[in-house]
Amino acid sequence: MSLNAKLVKGFKLKKIDVAFDSNIVVLNRSVARSYGISEGSIIGVGCSGRVFGGKVVLSDSLVDKYSIGVPEDIYEKLSECENVELYPFEFPPSFSYLRKRLRGEHLPENAYMSIVRDVTHGLYDPGQIAAFLLSQVYKPLSLDELAYLIRAMVETGEIVKFPETVYDEHSIGGVPGNSKVALIAVPIVASMGLLIPKTSSRAITSPAGTADTMEVLARVDFSPDEIHEIALRARGTIVWGGALGLAPADDIFIRVERKLAIDPQTQMVASILAKKLAMSVSRLVIDIPFGKGAKVETEEDAVELGSLFLSQAQRLGITMRVALTYGGEPVGFTIGPALEAREALETLIKGTGAPNLVEKACSLAALVLSLGGVTSADQAACEALKSGKAYAKFKEIIEAQEGDPDIKPEDIPISSIQYTLTAPRDGIVSFVNNVALNMAARLAGAPDDKSAGIRLYAKTGYRVRKGDPLLTVYASTKNRLRDAVRTLSELGAFVIEGVLVRILP
Amino acid sequence: MSLNAKLVKGFKLKKIDVAFDSNIVVLNRSVARSYGISEGSIIGVGCSGRVFGGKVVLSDSLVDKYSIGVPEDIYEKLSECENVELYPFEFPPSFSYLRKRLRGEHLPENAYMSIVRDVTHGLYDPGQIAAFLLSQVYKPLSLDELAYLIRAMVETGEIVKFPETVYDEHSIGGVPGNSKVALIAVPIVASMGLLIPKTSSRAITSPAGTADTMEVLARVDFSPDEIHEIALRARGTIVWGGALGLAPADDIFIRVERKLAIDPQTQMVASILAKKLAMSVSRLVIDIPFGKGAKVETEEDAVELGSLFLSQAQRLGITMRVALTYGGEPVGFTIGPALEAREALETLIKGTGAPNLVEKACSLAALVLSLGGVTSADQAACEALKSGKAYAKFKEIIEAQEGDPDIKPEDIPISSIQYTLTAPRDGIVSFVNNVALNMAARLAGAPDDKSAGIRLYAKTGYRVRKGDPLLTVYASTKNRLRDAVRTLSELGAFVIEGVLVRILP
Repeated sequence: MSLNAKLVKGFKLKKIDVAFDSNIVVLNRSVARSYGISEGSIIGVGCSGRVFGGKVVLSDSLVDKYSIGVPEDIYEKLSECENVELYPFEFPPSFSYLRKRLRGEHLPENAYMSIVRDVTHGLYDPGQIAAFLLSQVYKPLSLDELAYLIRAMVETGEIVKFPETVYDEHSIGGVPGNSKVALIAVPIVASMGLLIPKTSSRAITSPAGTADTMEVLARVDFSPDEIHEIALRARGTIVWGGALGLAPADDIFIRVERKLAIDPQTQMVASILAKKLAMSVSRLVIDIPFGKGAKVETEEDAVELGSLFLSQAQRLGITMRVALTYGGEPVGFTIGPALEAREALETLIKGTGAPNLVEKACSLAALVLSLGGVTSADQAACEALKSGKAYAKFKEIIEAQEGDPDIKPEDIPISSIQYTLTAPRDGIVSFVNNVALNMAARLAGAPDDKSAGIRLYAKTGYRVRKGDPLLTVYASTKNRLRDAVRTLSELGAFVIEGVLVRILP
Repeated sequence: MSLNAKLVKGFKLKKIDVAFDSNIVVLNRSVARSYGISEGSIIGVGCSGRVFGGKVVLSDSLVDKYSIGVPEDIYEKLSECENVELYPFEFPPSFSYLRKRLRGEHLPENAYMSIVRDVTHGLYDPGQIAAFLLSQVYKPLSLDELAYLIRAMVETGEIVKFPETVYDEHSIGGVPGNSKVALIAVPIVASMGLLIPKTSSRAITSPAGTADTMEVLARVDFSPDEIHEIALRARGTIVWGGALGLAPADDIFIRVERKLAIDPQTQMVASILAKKLAMSVSRLVIDIPFGKGAKVETEEDAVELGSLFLSQAQRLGITMRVALTYGGEPVGFTIGPALEAREALETLIKGTGAPNLVEKACSLAALVLSLGGVTSADQAACEALKSGKAYAKFKEIIEAQEGDPDIKPEDIPISSIQYTLTAPRDGIVSFVNNVALNMAARLAGAPDDKSAGIRLYAKTGYRVRKGDPLLTVYASTKNRLRDAVRTLSELGAFVIEGVLVRILP
């Protein structure tokens, strides 16, 4: 009964050169007036079953009384409609389910299918999507509900099918410097013959997502068909999971989450698993870094989140291992897309690098290999990195993704607007502040400016002398450099303590 | 630290013929690319202190690389800027407060001032506004917080000042047929010489708000200056409170609430009191109808809401009386703007009408009069209606609001697409279903189509014979008529029982 659709026939479609963060439908003011449609309301447009929604924009200069303006992608999707029909909604068809959820009720499977379908078709307003996400913060989804949501997200998009078992590894992120791990782990796995078509995300609240970092070296935005073809050719991909059509509701949810700076745990699990299922992944390793300043701070919380992932894997038919990893300080010595791409490349070329980077990438790769029945998987993973087999495979992946396979670390441009922080005293580094580093790297311009970020020279346990460099900030502009450096000194990037801490009494 | 503003100088402003439900700023794609601004993000535009926000739309055909497109109202507001500057935000400046509220914290006074100022300036995304509103559903504002919110809503807009004490009455609504009460109560009060510049709302979830109904007879959209002038001339107004500049944040909140079909109690109180304070009202009667299918269902809840209003009145310096009225069935015999305008006009002309309409209008008017020190206020109010004094005043108000004072009830057009429901049996009406009537009247087309609605022929306690008409639905279109009638029969508009209900054993 919340649906309130009437049919208005006989308009011509017009392509409008506008881009917005949700679909828009441009109507002439007189058309809107005669049908009682107001600006900002959601309206369906289409013909015989193919209906897409958008928010109404009124304009007499963009469209006349006989036309409806839509952006190019909707124009293409509706190219077969001779006459276009308008379907004004008061509320999206599934809105009664959302109301129930806001009242704290649990919903059945078909409710999630309806909500996600409407979201995918553009029938939800950003405020309504925010309400759906916030309802998960205030009243978490049950395990069954979460599985319903994930299945709905997968089924409303394309599914890339492969003629063999599909493997993957995925980190929940949050730790500075983590985005480069997959650039090492994926080639290790692929070099051992397993199929690992990894999809990854762009940064939501961090200075670099794996997709941002890989994009420094190669294209990452491919269609599902292209991903399929690249994966079968190179045995591995590191592409952006926001590709058109793979669990498309996820990308819509993420856009709203970003504006709210929230990331409800259930929605994060849904986001990761939906993208994996859309790639037909059936053997999956999930990495949960925990520690001060990570997304998950304690081992207890990490175990709880791990159990949530495992409960869903079981419901969704995925064989899963969850790795809890130490996330209390940055991975490797770099933060930000270009710097991290450099470090990953150096590590692959040399076959070795920062201890916690190498160990993490090899361990995760080994877990994937063990899911594939590889014996002595730890040793095999290490060996693939050391021997250069992983690097050779990475070059294949770069080439398959239209990058330059012969690129050298020093070819990757880093911003020249930089500032180096030095140790204020002699001592031992007792703490490196994840939160300050993430925030400063973002203020410096990452991930939008790939050449911005932070390079570390010291980590926990390092002995430093007064005046030794601790880190360098690389920023997009001088203003951003100033903001980033100020944040580091306000929040404290490093704690340095003398060996002699206190004398009693 | 959530604020992330950089200054980009030297653009020309261009007026763009577009209307949307939030401010928009149109940028050329190359401009957006060079400054890392993405579609849908919020950006500030202005010069030297005058900055308004809007959501970014990208278009190369609407603006070139040297121009920024904005809708007419922002163009006018920024007419003094020679060169326009851009201020990209990652989050609105007050966003850290919103995050705290989402975590369940209570906020200090300056936080509400900051949030409301940012909302008013267009710096909040609809999803962020939805989050602010939903945080009130899940974690209600404290009494102090609510007063901070109200003051902030008033102070971020214009305040209409009068040289004498200002009176008003306001109903929280929700009961079908209630929108016409003010059309009778306000002229009664004004006819006794008190100043009652009533502002009213358009329907949010009901088929008619007082502003919708008054708009059938006169203009209701005036500027604050015009309202001031009309009120001093006619001693009363019945205008739309969404007029430019009066507690403008309220209208932004309401737009988002409407999409969510929520109306948090604290936000409702804020909305009503902010509009009243913006009109300098210091003596106020609040009507809380309660009963099955009303906004408030039990007397207990009505008392609780009344106490909330009184607690705020005390904090905000308003002398207030709260009237709890019976809202278990419709007020009068009509639902929908045109039908209700007819009934109000008939009642004023005849000096009498439907018992619960007349009693309600007179009682509320009498309460206002008693706040003004009028003795025997009940009798005075009745007498003003019966004698035609109130009708004469209403004609003055209509004329002052540019309507035709000599309009007759039968001049008001009602839709000819209609269907009459008849009694299925002999008996006595034991229940009239508010929810079904509200829903059906909306499905029929009210309030957007003013000529749509429902006319009742029977109410609780009426004796009917099989085949007697119970109600007529008037709809915008045949489809809407079908939907409305189907809803009435599914939900049951009337319960009719024989006098002999059961025989035992």
